[in-house]
Amino acid sequence: MRILIPGIDGYLGWALAQYLAERGHQVGGVDAGFRRQWVQEMGSRSAIPIAEMPARLAAFEERWGQRLFYQQGDLTDWDFIQRIFKEFRPEAIIHLGQCPSAPYSMIDRQHAVWVQTNNIMGNLNMLYAMHELAPEAHLVKLGTMGEYGTPAMDIPEGFFEVEFRGKKDRLPFPRQAGSWYHQSKVHDSNNTMLACKIWGLRVTDIMQGVVYGTRVDGLESDERLFTRLDFDEAFGTAINRFACQAVIAAPLTLYGSGHQKRGFLPLRDSLQCLALAVENPPLEGEDNYRVFNMFEEVYNVVELAGKVASAAAGLGLNPQVRHIENPRLEMEEHYYRPDRQHLLDLGYQPTHDMEAELRLMLTDLLRYSGRIEEVKEVLLPRIRWDGSRRQSTYLD
Amino acid sequence: MRILIPGIDGYLGWALAQYLAERGHQVGGVDAGFRRQWVQEMGSRSAIPIAEMPARLAAFEERWGQRLFYQQGDLTDWDFIQRIFKEFRPEAIIHLGQCPSAPYSMIDRQHAVWVQTNNIMGNLNMLYAMHELAPEAHLVKLGTMGEYGTPAMDIPEGFFEVEFRGKKDRLPFPRQAGSWYHQSKVHDSNNTMLACKIWGLRVTDIMQGVVYGTRVDGLESDERLFTRLDFDEAFGTAINRFACQAVIAAPLTLYGSGHQKRGFLPLRDSLQCLALAVENPPLEGEDNYRVFNMFEEVYNVVELAGKVASAAAGLGLNPQVRHIENPRLEMEEHYYRPDRQHLLDLGYQPTHDMEAELRLMLTDLLRYSGRIEEVKEVLLPRIRWDGSRRQSTYLD
Repeated sequence: MRILIPGIDGYLGWALAQYLAERGHQVGGVDAGFRRQWVQEMGSRSAIPIAEMPARLAAFEERWGQRLFYQQGDLTDWDFIQRIFKEFRPEAIIHLGQCPSAPYSMIDRQHAVWVQTNNIMGNLNMLYAMHELAPEAHLVKLGTMGEYGTPAMDIPEGFFEVEFRGKKDRLPFPRQAGSWYHQSKVHDSNNTMLACKIWGLRVTDIMQGVVYGTRVDGLESDERLFTRLDFDEAFGTAINRFACQAVIAAPLTLYGSGHQKRGFLPLRDSLQCLALAVENPPLEGEDNYRVFNMFEEVYNVVELAGKVASAAAGLGLNPQVRHIENPRLEMEEHYYRPDRQHLLDLGYQPTHDMEAELRLMLTDLLRYSGRIEEVKEVLLPRIRWDGSRRQSTYLD
Repeated sequence: MRILIPGIDGYLGWALAQYLAERGHQVGGVDAGFRRQWVQEMGSRSAIPIAEMPARLAAFEERWGQRLFYQQGDLTDWDFIQRIFKEFRPEAIIHLGQCPSAPYSMIDRQHAVWVQTNNIMGNLNMLYAMHELAPEAHLVKLGTMGEYGTPAMDIPEGFFEVEFRGKKDRLPFPRQAGSWYHQSKVHDSNNTMLACKIWGLRVTDIMQGVVYGTRVDGLESDERLFTRLDFDEAFGTAINRFACQAVIAAPLTLYGSGHQKRGFLPLRDSLQCLALAVENPPLEGEDNYRVFNMFEEVYNVVELAGKVASAAAGLGLNPQVRHIENPRLEMEEHYYRPDRQHLLDLGYQPTHDMEAELRLMLTDLLRYSGRIEEVKEVLLPRIRWDGSRRQSTYLD
C-alpha cells in the first residue's frame, strides 16, 4: 500500500516508516523538521543521536531497497500538501505531523496559539486534501487518550450509548482534555468527525496512550536508522524520562502522588497497532469514522517508576524514586478504565513484557548517558499549568 | 459596569451597545470591520442602511451622553487586545467578535481555515488577556445552539448527569456541530472550559438560537443608530431572509422539507438575555464555567415561514412559500427539545409575540425593499455542504 506519513522525522514517524517498509508497504513522508527545533528550544536534544534526513533516507534505501518519497514542508501550507498528494497519490495516510506536547503548549500564550493553529489547521488541510485529491484514501489520525480526561466511568472507544430523561442515543463520548495541546486533538477529532459525515471520508481516529521505548528490537540495525528519544519535560514521556534519569543516577521524579493512571504502550506495540489500523480500513457498510483506543495496559505512575527502578537495578543501577510538585493541574486520585477492544479484535497482540522492553531501553540509553548528563536540568519540570514558570521542588 | 463588546459593529453588537447604555452601563467596543467586508464579499449589503462607525459613535454620545470607548482592531492581534484591556479595564466582556456564518465557513478550504483560525485564536487570546490582565472580569461568550447538533434526546445546558456501565458522572453534553463555523464554536467552548478550570476564570457560555428582527422598538430613534440586517445566504438568518423575501414579493424559500426545528428568539430577547447574563455573573461557590441555552421558543421552519407569510398578508403582501433543495447536510426530521431554564431562573421574560415582532420588522424593511430587490440573487443558496457550488433548485 502507498502510505504517507506526515511527521516522518519524529519519534514514532521514523520507526513506523521502517516497520511499514518491513511489511512490504511503499512509504512516503513529509516533515517540517519542527520536532528537532522544539527540542532545541527546550534546551535539549535526543538522548540517542539521530542522523539528518538525507542520511536516514540513504540508510533506508540500502536496507529496504526502496527509495522513500520524502519532502520537507509544513501541513499548514496548502500548496505543499496539494503537491504531495498529487505526486505521491497516497492510498493511506498515517498523520503524525503535529506538535505532541502538553507542556510545550502551556508555556505561554504564543505557544498555545501556535500549537493549536499548527495542529488544527494542518489537520483541516489534510481533510480537504483527501476530499479533493484522494477521497478513497484511508486516514489514520493520531489523537491521544488524553482527549478523554479522567471521567468517573469507563471510557468507551469514541462513542457510547446513553439514556437521558428516558431517551437513548449513541453519542460521541464527552472529551475533557487538560492542556491546550490535548484540546487541539479534541478539536481535530471534532473536525474529522464532521468531514467524515459530510464527505464520506474514511478515518480511523487513534486515541493513543503514552509510548515508551527506544526501538523495535531487530529492526534498526544501522545507527542512521535509530529513532529519537527525548527526555526534556516537554517532549520526554513518563517512562522515557524515568529511563534517562536512571542511567544518569538521577532520582526518578513523580509528579505529585504519582497515583495518576494512564494507558501506556511500548513503541513496538504502537507500530503494531498503527499497521493493523492502516491495513484494516473501515469496510463498506461499516462506520467510516471509527475511534480506536490504543494502549497496552493501564498503570499508575508509581508502578511504572518502580518497574524502571527494578529493571535498572538488574543492570547495576540504583536510582531513587522521588515525588516533586505536580506542575500540571490534573486529578491524582481517580477512576480509570478505558476500553481497547477494537484493536484486539483486529489481532493486536499486546507485548506484556515491560521488563524486557525496559532492559533493552536502559541498555541502549547507557551508551548515551553522557549526552543526557550534559543537559540533565531539562528533566525537571518548570512549565506550570497555572501560567507561572518555576522549577518544581521535591516533596520528600 | 464597564462592559467591553468585541464585535460591536455587528448585528447584535451595535444593538447591544445601546441596550446596555440604556441600562446605565459604561460601554466599550472593538471591531475589525470584518462583517461589512464579508457581506460585501457575498455580493450583498445590509437591507437597512447603516452608518459608518464615527457617525454611530457621535449619535451614541448624543443620545446617551457617554463617549463610547472604541478602537478598530483584530482579536488575533495580541498587542491590540493587550492595549484594549489596559486602556478600558473591562469588568465584563460580551464576546461577539467572531465570524458567525455556517455557509461562509463552508465556501471552500480557505474560508474554513480562516473562520476557524479567526474564531478560535481570537477567543484563546481573549482568555489569555483575561488571565493576565483582568482575572476578576466576567466573560459572556457567544456560542450557538448549533454546537449540540440534533441528538435524539433532550439537550441540557452544557452538562448532564449520566450513567454508563453502572457508574455515574456529570459530563459535558456531547457536541455534534454541522459546519466548520459551528465546530469553531465547539472548539471555543472546549478551550474556554479548560481556561476556567486551570485559571479560575468566570465565564457564561451562551448557546444562542437563531436571532431575528430589525430593532428593539423605542431604542433606535436616530437612523445612525440602526443596526444592520443581512439577507444573503451566509449572513442572513432564516426569519430575516423570509422577511426580506416577503417585502420584495419573492417566494419564502425553505431548505428541503423545512421540518428542521431550531430555537429562535427576537433581537429584543437576545439583548435582554445577554444583559441578564452579564449582570448576574457566577457567584462565589457557584460553577465558574456555566452554560446558558438561549432562545425564546422552538419552531420548525415551515411554521416560521407561515408566520412571516401571515404577518406579510396583514400588510397587504402575499408571498408564496416554496421548498428548495437543502444545500446543507442536516437532519430534516428529528427530535428537538433543548432546555433554557437558567435564563428563566434569572428573570428572562420571553417576548411571546412573534406576530408583533414580524409586523415591526416587515414595516421597517418595506422602506428598503429597493435595496433588497437590487441584489436579490444573494437570497438563494449556492454554497453546498458537499463542497460544490450551484444554486439550489425549487422542489415544488
